[in-house]
Amino acid sequence: MKTRDNVFVNIDSLRLFVANVLKTNGFPAEDAAITADVLLAADRRGIMSHGVARLAKYIERLENGLIVPSATMTIVKETPVSLVVDGGAGMGQPVAYRSMMRCIEKARTGFLCVASIRNSNHYGIAGYYTQMALDHDMIGISMTNSEPLVVPTFGKNALLGTNPISIGVPAKDRRPFLLDMATSTVPVGKVEVYSRAQKEMPDSWATDERGLPATDAGKVLQNLKGEKKGGLLPLGGGTEDTGGHKGYGLAALVDIFCGVLSSGKTGNDVYGTPNSPPGVSHFVGAVNPEAFSSLDEIRENMTHYIDMLQNAAKGAGQHRIYVAGEKEYEAEERHLISVPLQAKVFETLNTLGARWNLTLEEA
Amino acid sequence: MKTRDNVFVNIDSLRLFVANVLKTNGFPAEDAAITADVLLAADRRGIMSHGVARLAKYIERLENGLIVPSATMTIVKETPVSLVVDGGAGMGQPVAYRSMMRCIEKARTGFLCVASIRNSNHYGIAGYYTQMALDHDMIGISMTNSEPLVVPTFGKNALLGTNPISIGVPAKDRRPFLLDMATSTVPVGKVEVYSRAQKEMPDSWATDERGLPATDAGKVLQNLKGEKKGGLLPLGGGTEDTGGHKGYGLAALVDIFCGVLSSGKTGNDVYGTPNSPPGVSHFVGAVNPEAFSSLDEIRENMTHYIDMLQNAAKGAGQHRIYVAGEKEYEAEERHLISVPLQAKVFETLNTLGARWNLTLEEA
Repeated sequence: MKTRDNVFVNIDSLRLFVANVLKTNGFPAEDAAITADVLLAADRRGIMSHGVARLAKYIERLENGLIVPSATMTIVKETPVSLVVDGGAGMGQPVAYRSMMRCIEKARTGFLCVASIRNSNHYGIAGYYTQMALDHDMIGISMTNSEPLVVPTFGKNALLGTNPISIGVPAKDRRPFLLDMATSTVPVGKVEVYSRAQKEMPDSWATDERGLPATDAGKVLQNLKGEKKGGLLPLGGGTEDTGGHKGYGLAALVDIFCGVLSSGKTGNDVYGTPNSPPGVSHFVGAVNPEAFSSLDEIRENMTHYIDMLQNAAKGAGQHRIYVAGEKEYEAEERHLISVPLQAKVFETLNTLGARWNLTLEEA
Repeated sequence: MKTRDNVFVNIDSLRLFVANVLKTNGFPAEDAAITADVLLAADRRGIMSHGVARLAKYIERLENGLIVPSATMTIVKETPVSLVVDGGAGMGQPVAYRSMMRCIEKARTGFLCVASIRNSNHYGIAGYYTQMALDHDMIGISMTNSEPLVVPTFGKNALLGTNPISIGVPAKDRRPFLLDMATSTVPVGKVEVYSRAQKEMPDSWATDERGLPATDAGKVLQNLKGEKKGGLLPLGGGTEDTGGHKGYGLAALVDIFCGVLSSGKTGNDVYGTPNSPPGVSHFVGAVNPEAFSSLDEIRENMTHYIDMLQNAAKGAGQHRIYVAGEKEYEAEERHLISVPLQAKVFETLNTLGARWNLTLEEA
């Protein structure tokens, strides 16, 4: 018997379903709408690991008291060009969204503004907030620390998050440049795919419980549960020869901009230890192109730059050089009305919704 | 007959020698002093590829009319938090130094300032300018594009520079965090070492003339001369599976912050094509920790963070987890009075100096 891989669901129905589940669980309507929109954006862009599949986990953490659904954000410090924000242990999406909106407003007259945010939770895809800045003709910056899954170079245990960096720059008559990358070689979802397929992993992806390169995906996932022995490798892999210390340096940099500048949590403390409650930290910012030149000139420079990359000679067997964000924009353009969900995710969502008489239907 | 590997030279004598060579070639005294200091800082930190070994190349480019020794910088645009600077085709060190000094001054009252710089030349190690900000109790940012040596993911020819990113954050009672990393897996100097040793390279370092992973270092260097066929690989290597597209994205990001925001040169244009004169672009910036919290609190948060990394469990066979910049700071502390130069570099410097009766002596 063949099981279905994907189920297509109408975008508006899915958004409503996710928002209703969140509202039923104590989220204010606007917070529920923001969170639902961020999750949907991931599915539309083909980043299913960060999409509505996360909802069940969110509700579980909420029921365990790790997320305060009705949290309000506090501005701890504000200057003309910066904010420190406390998320009040609420969900990451509303606080990151509102902080970015405030950065965009401030950058209109002040040319740029950045916000370091503490005491939050998972905020979805980093690129959502960058896109907000792009939608307002600004350069966007977005980073977050996250659950410890990454082993520092020469370390033994997972200590750092996959700590993504996203930066977006607008272009003219072209899709924007939109980088959105974890600072680990691969996300944990990729290890899960290899585990299910019982396929050997490249040795730049993860380490075993001794801190040595591992190729057994199932074992790596098992080690990560519980005591965080071993884990994912930083971008560049497990040696300095292949540049692993650079990915580790970038992961630490994200931790610093998010958790150190906000006086929030970093490293192992992000998801809680016996001595500290959990608390994810983020960093978002908007830069007005008028800080440098006219918006038009910056956009034209970008178009010239994107064309140079795309038109460059292709390597043997290759037909296309991609610009950061291009694959995700193309996926988004394919998913204007409905998005595919893994059949298992579709079922889990309906099981979850059934607790409050909420149903999700196929498109 | 054994040839000597290294010659030790007194730091003050070396600084004077380099500055004198530059002054003799038309550099104003202050510009010569700044450039000499940046080159020396690299040798002291053990980054010999970016140290005084570059002087002969600088003079060659100067004599070919590619560097204007008496150039003065022009501020093209200025806002409270940003600068666009034109280097007037001068050396990179003086314009980057002065732009960073101005950013530091502006960040004292304005909390942060960034400068995008066009029409410049090689500026030495990115970390020198970051260190300037650290010396003023600020967070420093420094990036530059450079000679095309790096092949974009799925591309065939070198199109991007090794485009380094440096960010530094001050700590209390600890050395600062000072990331200074090329966005390629390795610098070209490392390929040269493997070529001399006729050693096979890891396949994440470079591509051949077809754009396929290469392990023959000599061949890669030969290909890079002339038509830039093949070249270095971005951090993460030659495939998306190992994250090569992330290193490529970061390299492009550096190009954008340096060359797009300043309306300067990017990619292949940086070192000149038949249709365009050369022109390197930089980006520097200073962030006042008071934008987020008190300087003291940020420094204490950093100390806590650094201790967490350093004290974490070590992988099998490892005795130490490094923090970004630690190795270079330790090298610098070993080289307070004299620095080692490769015997060949020492000879080349003396051959060069002899043209103007300038001599460099061993310590």
